[in-house]
Amino acid sequence: MVEWNKPVAVLGCGLIGESWAALFLAHGYDVQAWDPSPQVRLGFTARLERPLAQLVTLGCDPARRGRLQVAESLAEAVIGVGLVQENAPENIPLKQGLYAEIEAVVSADTIIASSTSALTWSELSPGMRNPQRLITAHPFNPPHLVPLVELYGISAAHLDSADGLYRSIGRKPVCLKKDAVGHIANRLASALWREAVHIVAEGIADVSEVDAALVHGPGLRWSVMGAHMTYHLGGGQEGMAHYLRHLGPSQVRRWASLGMPQLTEAVCQALISGVDKEAAGRSVSELEVQRDAQLIKALQARGAADGML
Amino acid sequence: MVEWNKPVAVLGCGLIGESWAALFLAHGYDVQAWDPSPQVRLGFTARLERPLAQLVTLGCDPARRGRLQVAESLAEAVIGVGLVQENAPENIPLKQGLYAEIEAVVSADTIIASSTSALTWSELSPGMRNPQRLITAHPFNPPHLVPLVELYGISAAHLDSADGLYRSIGRKPVCLKKDAVGHIANRLASALWREAVHIVAEGIADVSEVDAALVHGPGLRWSVMGAHMTYHLGGGQEGMAHYLRHLGPSQVRRWASLGMPQLTEAVCQALISGVDKEAAGRSVSELEVQRDAQLIKALQARGAADGML
Repeated sequence: MVEWNKPVAVLGCGLIGESWAALFLAHGYDVQAWDPSPQVRLGFTARLERPLAQLVTLGCDPARRGRLQVAESLAEAVIGVGLVQENAPENIPLKQGLYAEIEAVVSADTIIASSTSALTWSELSPGMRNPQRLITAHPFNPPHLVPLVELYGISAAHLDSADGLYRSIGRKPVCLKKDAVGHIANRLASALWREAVHIVAEGIADVSEVDAALVHGPGLRWSVMGAHMTYHLGGGQEGMAHYLRHLGPSQVRRWASLGMPQLTEAVCQALISGVDKEAAGRSVSELEVQRDAQLIKALQARGAADGML
Repeated sequence: MVEWNKPVAVLGCGLIGESWAALFLAHGYDVQAWDPSPQVRLGFTARLERPLAQLVTLGCDPARRGRLQVAESLAEAVIGVGLVQENAPENIPLKQGLYAEIEAVVSADTIIASSTSALTWSELSPGMRNPQRLITAHPFNPPHLVPLVELYGISAAHLDSADGLYRSIGRKPVCLKKDAVGHIANRLASALWREAVHIVAEGIADVSEVDAALVHGPGLRWSVMGAHMTYHLGGGQEGMAHYLRHLGPSQVRRWASLGMPQLTEAVCQALISGVDKEAAGRSVSELEVQRDAQLIKALQARGAADGML
C-alpha cells in the first residue's frame, strides 16, 4: 500500500467537494482544492467550518488537521498529489476533459478518483492515457457523515491503495466486482423507493407513514445488519439455506406483487404534498441540520463495534 | 381512547409472543399468555428474562413490571383482557378458529390484534361475529427492540385505541389506509432484497459487500430519515418538486434497469456461501446477540429526538 504522505486534490468545491475536503483535512491530510468558479473558491474555506466541527464532535483532533490550499488553477491543485478526488458535474465530456488536463500534470502513480453517482468507470475511462489510474469512488450524502464509499476500477493495486486511504479517513469502502450503473447503494435505494412510491400511488399509506415505517422498522435494522444477513437470521439456526428452502418461493411471489409506479402528475403531487406535510414547515436546510445531528448520534452509538456485525 | 387498565392476552408463546409479552410486562401491563404446547408454556417465563433485561437497559423500570400469568387454556388467557395479541402460525383456518374461540369468551370491546406478517385483514376477518374488533398489528423482528407496528383495521375507534396502547409500550405504530400483502415494511424490504439478490446474481458484488454498502450507506441514513424525505432533501432548497422535475426521469430509467432475479440453485448457493463467509463462523444465535446489542445502542442514541426527523 502506498504511503499516503502526499496531499490530496479536491476538484469541484460544491457540497460533495466540501465533505471530501473536510474529511481529508480532519484526518491530517493536506488538501489542494480547486473549482472553476472564483466565487465558489472564495467561500470554500468558510463553508468547511460546519463539516469540520461535526468531525471534531465525532472524535477528530483539530490539532492534527491538515492544511488547506485553495488553488487558482487545476494544474496548481493537482501538482504533487497522491490522489485527485474529482467532483465535477455528471457530464462525460467535461470529466474526460478534466482527466486529460490532470494526466498532463500529475506523476505516473497518481490516482484519479471520481465521486460520480450516475456515471460508470466504463463511460469515463475512454480517452485516458492511463485508464488504470482511474477509479470511481462514490460517496453517499452527506459524505463526511455517511461512511460508505463504493469503489470500482481495473487496477487492483490502485484500488488497494485507495481503499487504504479512505479507511484512514474513517470511511468504509466497498469494492464492486463489475462496473454497474448506480453502483450498489443507489440501486438498492432506487429499488426501495420504487416500492415506496407505489405504496403512495396505490393509496396504501401516506408519505409520512411510509417514511415512519422505514425509519422505525427496516431502516433501523439495516443500520446494524445487511439485508442478506437479515434473511440468514430469518431462517433460524440453519440460516439462509433454511430460509431459501422454506420461504424462498413466498419471496418470489412477493417480488412478483411489487409495484412499477409511473411518476404521473397525480403521483408527483401526492409525493410533494406528502413530504410537505411530513416536513411540517421545516425548510430543507433545517431538515439537513436535524439529519446531521441524528447521524452523528447514530455514528457515536456504533462506537468500537464499527456498526456492522 | 380506552383506558388501558385491563390485562393483555398473548396467544402463541414463540419468539414474537415472547417479545410482546416482555414489552407489555416491562411497561406495567399484566399479561395472560397461552400456547397450545404445554412444553412451550413451561419454558415461557424463563425465556422472557433476556428481552426483559434488554428493556431494562433501554430504561424500563423493573419495579413497575406487570404480572405474568401463563394460562392453561385459551379461554383462561383471554378472560377480562382489553386486547388479545395473536401470534399463531400463518394459517388462515387456524387463526379463524382461534378468533371464534376468543369471541365466545371476551367482552364486546375487546380488540383482537393479529401479529400476522404474511396474511391480511381481509383474509382473516371472514367468519367473525364482530370483524370491527379485528386489527392486524404487525411488529418487526425483534419486536421488543424494533419500534415499528403496522396497523390495519376497519374501526377507527379500535385503531385509535390500539395505537394508544402500542405507544404506551414505546412502539411507533403506523397506520395503513388499505389492506396490503406485506403491509409497508416487508414490501420495502422485499423490494430492496430483490435488487440485493440481483446484484449478487449478476456478479456485481459479493453478499458481504452488498450488506456493508447497505449498513454503512442507505441503511444508516434510513435509520434517521425516510426514503421520501431523503429525495426531498436531494432536491435542494426546492425539495421534492425540484427533485421530481429534474431527476424524476432518471429515476424512472433506473427503475427500468433494476433486476428481476430468479432463486436458481446457483443463486441460492451464492447467497448461502456469501452469508457463511460474512458470518465468519458466528452462529445465528451469536449474530442475534450482536444484532440486539447494536440495536440497543442505536435506540439509546435516538434518545429524546425519538429517532425520526
